[in-house]
Amino acid sequence: MLATMLYGPGDVRCEQVDEPKTLKPTDAVIRLSATCICGSDLWPFRGANEVTAPMAMGHEYCGIVEEVGSAVKTVRPGQFVVGSFCISDNTCPHCRFGFQSSCEQREFMKGAQAPLARVPLADGTLVATGEIPADDLIPSLLATSDVLGTGWYAADAAGVQEGSTTVVVGDGAVGLMGVLAAKQMGAGRIIAMSRHKTRQDLALEFGAIEIISERGDKGVARVKELTNGVGAESVLECVGTQESMMRAINCARPGGKIGFVGVPHGVQLDGQGLFFQQKSLMGGPAPVRRFLPYLMDLVLDRAINPGKVFDLELPLADVAEGYRAMDERRAIKTLLKV
Amino acid sequence: MLATMLYGPGDVRCEQVDEPKTLKPTDAVIRLSATCICGSDLWPFRGANEVTAPMAMGHEYCGIVEEVGSAVKTVRPGQFVVGSFCISDNTCPHCRFGFQSSCEQREFMKGAQAPLARVPLADGTLVATGEIPADDLIPSLLATSDVLGTGWYAADAAGVQEGSTTVVVGDGAVGLMGVLAAKQMGAGRIIAMSRHKTRQDLALEFGAIEIISERGDKGVARVKELTNGVGAESVLECVGTQESMMRAINCARPGGKIGFVGVPHGVQLDGQGLFFQQKSLMGGPAPVRRFLPYLMDLVLDRAINPGKVFDLELPLADVAEGYRAMDERRAIKTLLKV
Repeated sequence: MLATMLYGPGDVRCEQVDEPKTLKPTDAVIRLSATCICGSDLWPFRGANEVTAPMAMGHEYCGIVEEVGSAVKTVRPGQFVVGSFCISDNTCPHCRFGFQSSCEQREFMKGAQAPLARVPLADGTLVATGEIPADDLIPSLLATSDVLGTGWYAADAAGVQEGSTTVVVGDGAVGLMGVLAAKQMGAGRIIAMSRHKTRQDLALEFGAIEIISERGDKGVARVKELTNGVGAESVLECVGTQESMMRAINCARPGGKIGFVGVPHGVQLDGQGLFFQQKSLMGGPAPVRRFLPYLMDLVLDRAINPGKVFDLELPLADVAEGYRAMDERRAIKTLLKV
Repeated sequence: MLATMLYGPGDVRCEQVDEPKTLKPTDAVIRLSATCICGSDLWPFRGANEVTAPMAMGHEYCGIVEEVGSAVKTVRPGQFVVGSFCISDNTCPHCRFGFQSSCEQREFMKGAQAPLARVPLADGTLVATGEIPADDLIPSLLATSDVLGTGWYAADAAGVQEGSTTVVVGDGAVGLMGVLAAKQMGAGRIIAMSRHKTRQDLALEFGAIEIISERGDKGVARVKELTNGVGAESVLECVGTQESMMRAINCARPGGKIGFVGVPHGVQLDGQGLFFQQKSLMGGPAPVRRFLPYLMDLVLDRAINPGKVFDLELPLADVAEGYRAMDERRAIKTLLKV
């Protein structure tokens, strides 16, 4: 089959590989209904993470179970499933505490930018629907696998609740999903930081009521202006740079919470600064599995439409163009047809 | 009157100064029933904070109101009061959000190691009792002003709740108060890190059920051993060094919370490390005013006895010996009779 491999910065290829098989009794193999490119795939594509050997790309997935190992009990061939980008057993103490992304058996999914993918720990990772969903729901169900789950976790970690003033730093797909999540959680006022018209429009559609295009200290000053000098209860950091992290911290009010889901690259925090600002920090890889059944239901009930975040659809063979379009910010997020 | 002045590292003196007067209509002057030395007073005493001019020391206080400014409405001469070490108006948005230690008009109390002290923003800072309390309650009421309030905030920020496994890093007076606070909040299992017999004993008396004397990675390993490899839901960081902060973070389970109240000195945190550990950090100067009425009631009801943390009593004239005894860890905390 054709699958996506990253050889080095800027060098992503669609090439022939062997079809995956179950390797362990707890594995499943699924036939993907669709797959996509993640903002985090751009870190190695841009050379920010070193690539020492060809990497099988893709960790967002949904589709039909093709084959299961002998120990798999909760999903069976023919079912439609979505899984988290974090593989988890969903039974260890960390999973039971709601932090499946720190599962004692955690692995990160890979190889999902392909027609077939092997999913380890299928029972703990996959959630099946009752029926095969309608085709038009596939993009939104695919979104629950990572990008929506990650935006949701950012809002959860930022303590968004009924009436919260919420700032979202980052207008990538995760940031936009963070807007949607905050809206669902009842945020009273969502301020999105974005300087790109198409992203601003989508943020407004997902529930933002104000857009700030300034970054750095000017962006912080704008948030302060809009909040009578107070700052926001909840801030979602969805980028991962030193500037974006400091902006997020500085936008929060004392006692406010920052949920950070952009993988930090080169971010250093001064302990005494954090202390005197007295703001809560909570981040990490999202425990999507905690939220997955709820988010899938929201999609199946057509209460939310996170699939709108995909503004480019390409056949898998054109995956390299999908990476380039996202890298150059011509596309927010690329869906790949397999 | 005699008051305590710090001239430089190791150079603390009790010397004649003018008696304080109300300077603003919102001030009060109180006659202290007792005062004490704070662990944070040791930072400048040890030279960790620069002293450029003689500093009027002391920020923990309780006593009888002597005089109030014309605008003061909620306390009157003759009442017994306790106040927070953070001066606050208790009306600004930060105060109303429960973060009086980030009050828009915040000042830090000073000059309380003396018989009389001026308290700015008396209405927002002081809490009066209904009657003059019994003499034997004075040490515990004094403790609510900072050391207990700070330990309480650490437990609050660390999310201690019914049944939480809680680790307390630091066996200074604040750490010991953190043990007491966690016990009051219903922690199921309190593990105190201490290597000093008298402090271990007090930690056990306040509610700890296990003592760990190892520090650094060995201390973390012991916590992991005691928690089946999982770590603690709640960790109170009550020291403020790089080692103690990393120990606190590493003792927490994924999804766990660290409340840090030791003023960080030279602490640097790596963003990516925090991200992959996915632990919540919340700290800062304690908003004691939020907790003060409740804590004073607990003391007046004799439900808690935080005053036990004072294991040395000296007359104010011997304040220098009080500093030395704490610096050399011969005393946990020194109460000064005025």
